[in-house]
Amino acid sequence: MVGYAFMGAAHSQAWRTVNRVFDLPTRATMVAVCGRDAAKVAEAAGRLGWAEAVTDWRELVARDDIDVIDVCTPGDSHAEIAIAALEAGKHVLCEKPLANNVDEARAMVAAATKARALGVRSACGFNYRRVPAVTLMRNLIAEGRLGAIRHVRAVYLQDWITDPNFPLVWRLQKDKAGSGALGDIGAHIIDLTQFVTGQTITGVAGLTETFIKERPLPEASSGLSASAGATTGEVTVDDAAVFVARLSGGGLATYEATRFATGRKNGLKVEINGERGSLVFDLERLNELEFYDATLPTAEQGFNRILVTEGEHPYVSAWWPPGHIIGYEHSFTHEMRDFIEAITTGTDPTPSFEDALQVQLVLDAVERSGSADASWISVPAPLVES
Amino acid sequence: MVGYAFMGAAHSQAWRTVNRVFDLPTRATMVAVCGRDAAKVAEAAGRLGWAEAVTDWRELVARDDIDVIDVCTPGDSHAEIAIAALEAGKHVLCEKPLANNVDEARAMVAAATKARALGVRSACGFNYRRVPAVTLMRNLIAEGRLGAIRHVRAVYLQDWITDPNFPLVWRLQKDKAGSGALGDIGAHIIDLTQFVTGQTITGVAGLTETFIKERPLPEASSGLSASAGATTGEVTVDDAAVFVARLSGGGLATYEATRFATGRKNGLKVEINGERGSLVFDLERLNELEFYDATLPTAEQGFNRILVTEGEHPYVSAWWPPGHIIGYEHSFTHEMRDFIEAITTGTDPTPSFEDALQVQLVLDAVERSGSADASWISVPAPLVES
Amino acid sequence: MVGYAFMGAAHSQAWRTVNRVFDLPTRATMVAVCGRDAAKVAEAAGRLGWAEAVTDWRELVARDDIDVIDVCTPGDSHAEIAIAALEAGKHVLCEKPLANNVDEARAMVAAATKARALGVRSACGFNYRRVPAVTLMRNLIAEGRLGAIRHVRAVYLQDWITDPNFPLVWRLQKDKAGSGALGDIGAHIIDLTQFVTGQTITGVAGLTETFIKERPLPEASSGLSASAGATTGEVTVDDAAVFVARLSGGGLATYEATRFATGRKNGLKVEINGERGSLVFDLERLNELEFYDATLPTAEQGFNRILVTEGEHPYVSAWWPPGHIIGYEHSFTHEMRDFIEAITTGTDPTPSFEDALQVQLVLDAVERSGSADASWISVPAPLVES
Amino acid sequence: MVGYAFMGAAHSQAWRTVNRVFDLPTRATMVAVCGRDAAKVAEAAGRLGWAEAVTDWRELVARDDIDVIDVCTPGDSHAEIAIAALEAGKHVLCEKPLANNVDEARAMVAAATKARALGVRSACGFNYRRVPAVTLMRNLIAEGRLGAIRHVRAVYLQDWITDPNFPLVWRLQKDKAGSGALGDIGAHIIDLTQFVTGQTITGVAGLTETFIKERPLPEASSGLSASAGATTGEVTVDDAAVFVARLSGGGLATYEATRFATGRKNGLKVEINGERGSLVFDLERLNELEFYDATLPTAEQGFNRILVTEGEHPYVSAWWPPGHIIGYEHSFTHEMRDFIEAITTGTDPTPSFEDALQVQLVLDAVERSGSADASWISVPAPLVES
Repeated sequence: MVGYAFMGAAHSQAWRTVNRVFDLPTRATMVAVCGRDAAKVAEAAGRLGWAEAVTDWRELVARDDIDVIDVCTPGDSHAEIAIAALEAGKHVLCEKPLANNVDEARAMVAAATKARALGVRSACGFNYRRVPAVTLMRNLIAEGRLGAIRHVRAVYLQDWITDPNFPLVWRLQKDKAGSGALGDIGAHIIDLTQFVTGQTITGVAGLTETFIKERPLPEASSGLSASAGATTGEVTVDDAAVFVARLSGGGLATYEATRFATGRKNGLKVEINGERGSLVFDLERLNELEFYDATLPTAEQGFNRILVTEGEHPYVSAWWPPGHIIGYEHSFTHEMRDFIEAITTGTDPTPSFEDALQVQLVLDAVERSGSADASWISVPAPLVES
Repeated sequence: MVGYAFMGAAHSQAWRTVNRVFDLPTRATMVAVCGRDAAKVAEAAGRLGWAEAVTDWRELVARDDIDVIDVCTPGDSHAEIAIAALEAGKHVLCEKPLANNVDEARAMVAAATKARALGVRSACGFNYRRVPAVTLMRNLIAEGRLGAIRHVRAVYLQDWITDPNFPLVWRLQKDKAGSGALGDIGAHIIDLTQFVTGQTITGVAGLTETFIKERPLPEASSGLSASAGATTGEVTVDDAAVFVARLSGGGLATYEATRFATGRKNGLKVEINGERGSLVFDLERLNELEFYDATLPTAEQGFNRILVTEGEHPYVSAWWPPGHIIGYEHSFTHEMRDFIEAITTGTDPTPSFEDALQVQLVLDAVERSGSADASWISVPAPLVES
Repeated sequence: MVGYAFMGAAHSQAWRTVNRVFDLPTRATMVAVCGRDAAKVAEAAGRLGWAEAVTDWRELVARDDIDVIDVCTPGDSHAEIAIAALEAGKHVLCEKPLANNVDEARAMVAAATKARALGVRSACGFNYRRVPAVTLMRNLIAEGRLGAIRHVRAVYLQDWITDPNFPLVWRLQKDKAGSGALGDIGAHIIDLTQFVTGQTITGVAGLTETFIKERPLPEASSGLSASAGATTGEVTVDDAAVFVARLSGGGLATYEATRFATGRKNGLKVEINGERGSLVFDLERLNELEFYDATLPTAEQGFNRILVTEGEHPYVSAWWPPGHIIGYEHSFTHEMRDFIEAITTGTDPTPSFEDALQVQLVLDAVERSGSADASWISVPAPLVES
Repeated sequence: MVGYAFMGAAHSQAWRTVNRVFDLPTRATMVAVCGRDAAKVAEAAGRLGWAEAVTDWRELVARDDIDVIDVCTPGDSHAEIAIAALEAGKHVLCEKPLANNVDEARAMVAAATKARALGVRSACGFNYRRVPAVTLMRNLIAEGRLGAIRHVRAVYLQDWITDPNFPLVWRLQKDKAGSGALGDIGAHIIDLTQFVTGQTITGVAGLTETFIKERPLPEASSGLSASAGATTGEVTVDDAAVFVARLSGGGLATYEATRFATGRKNGLKVEINGERGSLVFDLERLNELEFYDATLPTAEQGFNRILVTEGEHPYVSAWWPPGHIIGYEHSFTHEMRDFIEAITTGTDPTPSFEDALQVQLVLDAVERSGSADASWISVPAPLVES
C-alpha cells in the first residue's frame, strides 16, 4: 500500500478484516506500506498491521513478494505509481478519483488495457458501490423494477471547511488534489449514479464556486506554493459545484458536491425516479434503502424503508444477524473481497480504469462548464485505442 | 371569486374559515362565484358557500357590493380579469403564477401600480409563504441565524402524470397553462426560496423535458387544439425542469420541478445552508421545520426537528394546542387573514404583483435556457416604469 | 352543542365544513350553542357560527327544531345531558371519555339502548378513529394482513403540565375531569387499539403517578374546592399512567398516557405486530402509516411509509390531491360525516356508547390496579341488561 | 476466549481491531480460543485470528501465558468458567447476561470481589454502553441536562422466531439460556437504562408469554432434552416479556423485550423524559441521538438529531471523519478498549459483576411477576457480604 493517511487507514482495516469475515480462496498478506517520512510510515505500519515500512514506492513495485499495489496517495501521484505497478505486473487497486485530469486517466487506461492482456488486473476504489444498499439499488434497477429512469438527483454534502480559518490543506490545492469538492466527493456521486442506473452522463451545464478564496497556511507549509513569509495562501480548487445533466437513457439529472452545507457531514443522498418506482439512499444511514414500488395497489404504495441487513442482501451474510448495522469502513472490506475474488478467479474487477476515466470525463466537463458561464458541455465516450 | 375548481375549493374553504379562527377587523362575505357553465357554477356556489353564482366575471367587476376579486382561473385569463378588476377599484387576489408570460405580468404590475396609488390593493397567491414553518424559516434567516447563504436546494416533485394514458388536461397545454411543471410548481419553489432568503435569482442554466409527448384527449375535448377526429394530442408544456442558479447574495442554488418523480405526491423540499446554520422544509410534513444551529457546542449540533405548532409560531395561536397539526388548506386561510388585514389597515399585502413578476422573469429565463441548450440566462430586475 | 371551549371549537369547525366537503343527504344546520356565561357563549356563537346562544342546555333539549345534541362539556356533566337528550328523542354525539366513571357510563348505555329502540342514535366522540390512516390500519387488520396480533404498544405523550407553575385547571381535578392523563388521553389509545385490532383488553396491571401534587390556583378559582385564601390546591388526578395488558386474541400490550413527556406535544403512537406484518401510526404525522408486509420477498421487506392522501384512502377523495395533507381537525369533520350519514340512513353510528363503556371499564381497571400496587385487574365484559 | 459463535466472532473482530485504532498502553495478543468440537474450533481459530485452538477451557485457565479470559459461551457455563478463571488470577470479561439465575450471579460476584482484592479485574459485556450515542446519553443526563427523570420507555424488539417452523435452538431452552427474550435482550435495556439514568429499578409488574409452545428440533438435536424419536420439543423460555417499573428516582418506566415484533430486527429503542429535556436512541440507527432541550426558546425547541460522529463524541476520534458512520461491532471494540485500559491502569472496568447482578435481580423479579399474574415484585439491592 502506498499512502497511510485517511484512505490508508480505511484500506488497512479492510485488508485486516476481509479474510476474517469472507471465505475467499486467497488470504491477503499485508507485506509493506510506503510513505515518504520514514518515522511516520514505520509508526503507521506497526499501528495499521503492515509487516514492513518503506519510503520509496518503486521498491514495492520492484519486489517479487508483492502481487498487489494499493494506491492511497493524493491524486497527483496516482498515474505514475499505478502505471509503473501495472507495467511491473502488479495488480493495482487505485483510490478515486482515478487521476487529477483526463490525460493522466487516459494514460492509466492504456496501461491497464495492456496489463489486462497479460492477466494483470486493475480497479478504481469507488467504495460506495459496495455498500450493500447501493448494490441492492443497482440490482433492483437492473431487474427492471424502476422501468425507464426519468430523474436522478444526487448530492454529496459536507461542511468541514465552512470555517474561514480552516487551513489550506492539500485537498484545497489544485496541483495536489486536481479539484475540490467536485473531484473529491462529486466523483463519488457521478460514479454511483452511473453504476446503479447502468447509464452514462452525456452532457452537463453547471457552476463551480470558491466561497473562501484565501486561507491560513498549515503550520508545516513547506509543500505549499506560497510566497516566502506568507501566512495565508490561495484556495485553488472549488468549494462547491452544482450541475444539471442528461443521462444516456433520456432522463434528467441534478448533481451537487459541496463542502459548505452546514450540518451535512457525509451527506451523500441519491434519489432515482423511474416509470415504475423510485429508490432513495442516504450515506449517513447507509444500512437503509427506500424503495417505492408503483406496481403495488395504490393504497399500499409508499417509500419502503428496507433495512439492508438481511442475509439475502449483498455482502451481508458474512456479517451479523439482521438489524445489526455495519459502518462506513465495511464498504472497503467488500471492495477488497471482490478485488481478491476477481484476481483469484482471473476476471476483471470493477469499476475498471475505463469506468473511472468516464467519471473523469464528466468531472472535466463540469469544470469546463463552470469556467465558461455554465455552458453546455458534452461528455465524450471514453474510447480507448485498441 | 372567479373559478371554482381545485383552487376555487381551497380558497372557499379559507374564506369560510378565516373569520371563525382569526380575530379580524372585517368579516369576509362570500358574495358570488363565477364560472362559464351556469349549472356547474350554481352547484359549486351552493356547495362551497357562495351566495350567488354568475357566468360572466365582468358582472362581478361591475358590482358595487363587491370589494375583492379572487382570481382562481387558469393562467391565460389572469391578466384580463385582474387588470379589469383593479381598474374598477376592486382589490385583487390572483392565483399563481401571476400570468402565462412576462408581458402579461408586466401589464398586471402596471395596473397594480396605478391602483395602489388609489388605495386599491393586489397580491399574488403564493400560499406556501403562509405555512407557519415557512414563515418561521424566513424569520430565522431575517434574524441572521444562518449568516451568509451558501446553498439553496429546492425541489417540487409530483408524479400525477407518469402514466402515459393520463389525458391531455388543460395543465398540459401551453395556451392555457403557460408552462408545465415549471410554471405550476416550479413557480412555488422560486417564490418560496426568494421569500425566505430575501434574495433574488440573478441567472439560470437549465434543462426542460417533455417525457410523454402525445397523450389521449380528455372526453370533452372541444376546447383542445386537436385535429378533427384525433384521439390524442400533443403535450405542449414541460413535464420537468431542472436548473442551477446564482443568488443575489453569492450563493449557488439548484431547482427541480417535475411531475415524473414516482412516489412524490406533493414533494416540495427546500434546504438552505448558511455560514451559521441550515434549514430544511418538506411540504408533505408541513408542520415541521428542521433547524441546524452551528453556533451550539459541536457535540450538541444536529438537525433539530421543530414541530411548528406552538402558540409562539406564526399563525398557530389561532388554531389548536401544540402537536395538533394543521393541513395544506390552512396556508390559504392564513393568506386570506393577511390579505384582509392589509386591506383593512390600508397597507399593501404580499407578495405583490412585482414580486410575482420577478418569479415570472425567472420562469422565463429557465424556459429560454431550456430551449437554448442550457445556456446561461441572466434574470433582469423587475423594473417598472413609474 | 353544549360547551364551546377546545372541543367546542373543533366540533364547530367540523359542523361548518362537513357539508361543504362531503356530499351528504342532509345538511347540518348550526342552530344553537349553550354555555353558562351568557356573554361568553354569545361571543362564541358569533365566532364559531351558531345561530343562537343559550345558557341552559335543558332549553336545547326541549326545542323542537333541534334534532342532535353535541355534548362538548367536561366529563362530569356528560351523563346528565346525554341521558336527558336521548330521553327527549335527540340523537346524541358525546365527547370522550363517555363519563367520569363506570356507573355513569352504564346509565348512559341503558339510556342509549332504550333510545335506539325508538330510532334515536348515539355515538361517542373518539375522533381519531376517523383519521384516514387509522381507518386504513383497521381495514388492513380486518383483511387479515397482519394475521394473529402478537403485540400492541401504544403511548399518548404530552408535556403541557411539566412546569410546576402550570395552574390547577379543571382537567387536573378529579371531580370535574374524572381522571387525568389516563381518562383524557389514555382513553384515546385504549379505544384506538381496540378499534383497529377488533379485540378487547381483558386485564391490566399498571401504575399511576402524580408528579406535581400541589399547583397554583388559576386566577378565577371560584369553582375550585380549595380552602379560602389558599393560593395553591391539590392535584387530584394522575399525571401519568402506565400499564401492561392482555388482549382477547392472546397478544400482549403496553400502554402509557402522560402529560410529562417533555417534547412530546400530541404524541399518540401505536405499533401493532402481527404474524404477517406490522403497522405504525404517529398522530404528529397523521397523514402517514407505516406498514411492514412480511409476505413480501425478504430482501424487499421494510416499513413502508404510506402517505395516506390518495383518493383510494378512507375519507380522502373529498379533500385535496395526493400529498396535500390534512390536519387534526379533519378527524372531526369525518366524524360528523359518518354521524350524519348514520342518522340519515337510520343506522347506528360508531363508536356506540357500549364501545365507550368498554373503554371506561378498562380505565377503571387501570385506576384500580394503580391504587393496589399494580395488581392484576380483569376487565369485565360490558354487558347491558336487555 | 471460550466460545466462538456469534459473540465469539464479534469479540474476535474487536480484539483484532482495538489496538489498530486506539492508542493503548498494552497490545492484546489473541492466544487461544476454546470450543468443544476440535475440528470446528480449529477452523474458527484460523478464521477469527486466534493462534491456538483448545477443547477444554480449563486448559486456558491453567496457562501462564494467558492474562485474560473472555467468556462467550451460553449462560449456563458462565459461572463455572468465570469463577475458575478469577480464582486462577485471570482477568475476566463475561458476556451478558452474567448468569442464568441470581444464585449463580451472586457466586460470581463473590468471586469477583475476592479477586478484585488481589488486583484481578472483571466486567460484564453489556456492549451497548459503549455505543457513542449511549455514552453521550449518559453524559448529558449526568450533567443534569434532563433534570429529574419522569419516564423511561425501553423496548428491544426482534422478530427472528415469528415463524413457527423456526427450530428449537439453544436460545429457546431454559436449561441452556436461562430465559428467552427477557434475559437475552431484555437484559440489555435494563442495563442500558439503569446506566444512562444512574438509577435502579426498584420494583416491577409484568407479563411473559410463549406464543409458540412447540417447535421442530434442530437436525443435530443430540443436546436437546427431548424424548427419543420426537421431532418437536417444548419451548421452555419466554418469547416476550412486558413490564412496568418504578425507578429509584421516582420515575415510571415501561419495558418490552420480544422476538415477535415483525419487522423489527434489532429494535432497541429507549426514550427518557426529564424535567428539562428528553433523549431518544434507536440501535438500528446507532450513530444518532435525539436530544430535546426544553431550556431553548419555545419556538426553537425540537428533537435534535445529533449525528454522533464528531471527534468530540465518546470514542469517535479514533475512527473516521464526521458523518462516516460506525456499526454494531464497534461497540465491542470500545468495550475491549476500556477493558484493556482498566487492566493496564489497575482500575475496575465497568459494568462490574455487581452491576450485572443488579440486572439479574430485575430479570428475576420480572420472571416471578410474570409467573404470578403480574403481581408487584420489589427488586432487592444487590448487597454482597464483605
